[in-house]
Amino acid sequence: MSPTTQSIWADLTQIRAQAPLVHNITNFVVMNNTANALLALGASPAMVHAPEEVEDFVSISSSLVVNIGTLDDHFVTGMTLAMRRAKELGKPIVFDPVGVGATAYRNQVSQDLLTLATPTVIRGNASEIMALAGLNAQTKGVDSLFGSDAALDAARRLSSVWGCVVVISGATDYIVLGDQVASVANGHSLMTKVTGMGCTATALTGAFAAVNTNYFQAATHAMAVMGIAGELAAEKKLAPGSLQVNFLDALYTLTESEIDDRLKLTWS
Amino acid sequence: MSPTTQSIWADLTQIRAQAPLVHNITNFVVMNNTANALLALGASPAMVHAPEEVEDFVSISSSLVVNIGTLDDHFVTGMTLAMRRAKELGKPIVFDPVGVGATAYRNQVSQDLLTLATPTVIRGNASEIMALAGLNAQTKGVDSLFGSDAALDAARRLSSVWGCVVVISGATDYIVLGDQVASVANGHSLMTKVTGMGCTATALTGAFAAVNTNYFQAATHAMAVMGIAGELAAEKKLAPGSLQVNFLDALYTLTESEIDDRLKLTWS
Amino acid sequence: MSPTTQSIWADLTQIRAQAPLVHNITNFVVMNNTANALLALGASPAMVHAPEEVEDFVSISSSLVVNIGTLDDHFVTGMTLAMRRAKELGKPIVFDPVGVGATAYRNQVSQDLLTLATPTVIRGNASEIMALAGLNAQTKGVDSLFGSDAALDAARRLSSVWGCVVVISGATDYIVLGDQVASVANGHSLMTKVTGMGCTATALTGAFAAVNTNYFQAATHAMAVMGIAGELAAEKKLAPGSLQVNFLDALYTLTESEIDDRLKLTWS
Repeated sequence: MSPTTQSIWADLTQIRAQAPLVHNITNFVVMNNTANALLALGASPAMVHAPEEVEDFVSISSSLVVNIGTLDDHFVTGMTLAMRRAKELGKPIVFDPVGVGATAYRNQVSQDLLTLATPTVIRGNASEIMALAGLNAQTKGVDSLFGSDAALDAARRLSSVWGCVVVISGATDYIVLGDQVASVANGHSLMTKVTGMGCTATALTGAFAAVNTNYFQAATHAMAVMGIAGELAAEKKLAPGSLQVNFLDALYTLTESEIDDRLKLTWS
Repeated sequence: MSPTTQSIWADLTQIRAQAPLVHNITNFVVMNNTANALLALGASPAMVHAPEEVEDFVSISSSLVVNIGTLDDHFVTGMTLAMRRAKELGKPIVFDPVGVGATAYRNQVSQDLLTLATPTVIRGNASEIMALAGLNAQTKGVDSLFGSDAALDAARRLSSVWGCVVVISGATDYIVLGDQVASVANGHSLMTKVTGMGCTATALTGAFAAVNTNYFQAATHAMAVMGIAGELAAEKKLAPGSLQVNFLDALYTLTESEIDDRLKLTWS
Repeated sequence: MSPTTQSIWADLTQIRAQAPLVHNITNFVVMNNTANALLALGASPAMVHAPEEVEDFVSISSSLVVNIGTLDDHFVTGMTLAMRRAKELGKPIVFDPVGVGATAYRNQVSQDLLTLATPTVIRGNASEIMALAGLNAQTKGVDSLFGSDAALDAARRLSSVWGCVVVISGATDYIVLGDQVASVANGHSLMTKVTGMGCTATALTGAFAAVNTNYFQAATHAMAVMGIAGELAAEKKLAPGSLQVNFLDALYTLTESEIDDRLKLTWS
């Protein structure tokens, strides 16, 4: 096994052993499948957004995942309280700016949340990362119009402004922290035909960040595991209904050899 | 290939090529599976309901789907703003009056939305179409107590009052515009054992209406594709968990021959 | 067939024949899969939470299921109105205190709802039942830290204070009413790796309570059917994505012999 495989495997083993509680404030579309992906990975997910309880819940959780997919004002209140509390307690925050760039509201909320409590990791597609970095990226709703490499400069800028890890998802995923860039070329194009696979990548990053405080590494490991499970699933059957099922199965049964055999990870 | 098959195939090809952005304001139960059905068909779905952004989002979308399944006041505000904006911009609106007839609230909201901005297409089961037409149809929650043919007069009345296409789903689907009626006898009874298949038909209609401005045709094509994909899925395995998976797979892999071999469509 | 099998089968046959309308006010994570589980069982589910209509909806439903998974204030208003109305009309209420014990808010809302309108059946995991009984049980988010037998005293106390059936889910499920205890040792540990299987058990209990006014029996039958369908699914494939699909298939196709062959139910 390569040292990187061993390092991914160490994280995964710890997730499976400890089942860290991952607190999600996420969108309605993906609540079910991200909860299932976290369970299949070995973590313990909870979806809690009420202003009355998010602070209490953050305090018992190992990490916080915030996703603005089906944004509305009521959820923003919960996100605000939860992120502030996570920051006070030093718990990792993973932020997914779904659809940022598509509306002024999404842009404003994203900026407000970043300013309030800088996330540990930001994960988005190329359009989202470019929009968040203040570049006038065009978006197509929640889908990207660009390849992930087009957003590398934006990711570097975001990472340096906010001092956090930035992940660009795409055919190749880039994980950026300051001058460091890792790239993961795992995954399968069919994954874009299943809703919420990006959101799932964000949620899994929350689980890895719960067990590995080297967050650059944690995010990279999450993207590798995500991509490899996606490949395994796509090879079972090239159709999106089956992919969703087979992806969860692959996550649950993932072995160290499967990781080692398939890993396409470059640190630079 | 029959001319009708060719016409359906032309729409489907255009959806797959253009991936039109379909803006959904829909219920919590089906957000995930209607997003997946739209993706499997080839469209680009987004679920956006916040009053702060629905107008912006309508303006970048190709069509708007409004579904009152898990209705509440907050969503009604979003629906109102979105439908008004879609009307101003001349974008097609597909409306699904889930459970209308079951409560006074659902009746009131449906009438208010129709009056505010007449949809391009209304799709419901027989009970819903009858209730919406002001007939005192009994409903059983969100399920119909009638065969689809029982609602034909109600559909004609609705279509003539509002000047829009009306679709009645059932063992046979009827698509009505003024004096024109098309009927689609595809589909499988097992589809009623999977939640949100009606909502999925509505969402797919949104995708067809995004590429075909003959909305009577667009709605008919959507019901044909829905029914044929359902048949293909039911023939794989006669059980509802599998049906949901196989339905998405069938939508994604659907070929022109499969449509031509199975199509049971009558224009009259 | 054993008398117990016959009694379970009688309920199941009635559910399939009558398709009772089960009104759910439940959490966003599980709305889709609990609706699908109720459909696969043979019931007619509806998810309705708006304060404007829950009372009307309760009055046309056969039972009410209230689940506090993704609790917030707006839903609490709907739950309050619905439970009060169900009580007035003598309709069975099944209550699932998801995550109670994890936050003060959850504890308060649960106590308020119990006081307002005692449920017919309360179903939770061991941590939840202990927390609800006022024991200082530790929870881990929405997962239990205890085996189900650890909560037997708490269940007896809850049952005697509120005069209702209390179900503790776990490797062995306990169903408690006063001095009576039934235990069901069916099920499979993989079920804990699929989100919302507990919520599904609660929803199925709503369907059984709709056709059997011996609620102790109804709850026991629901847990038996749940466990057996879970076993059948786990035996098809030992992976969580497949389990969810195969569970729905097994529920839908469940036969009297499958129940009789597998039932591990003890009345004491």
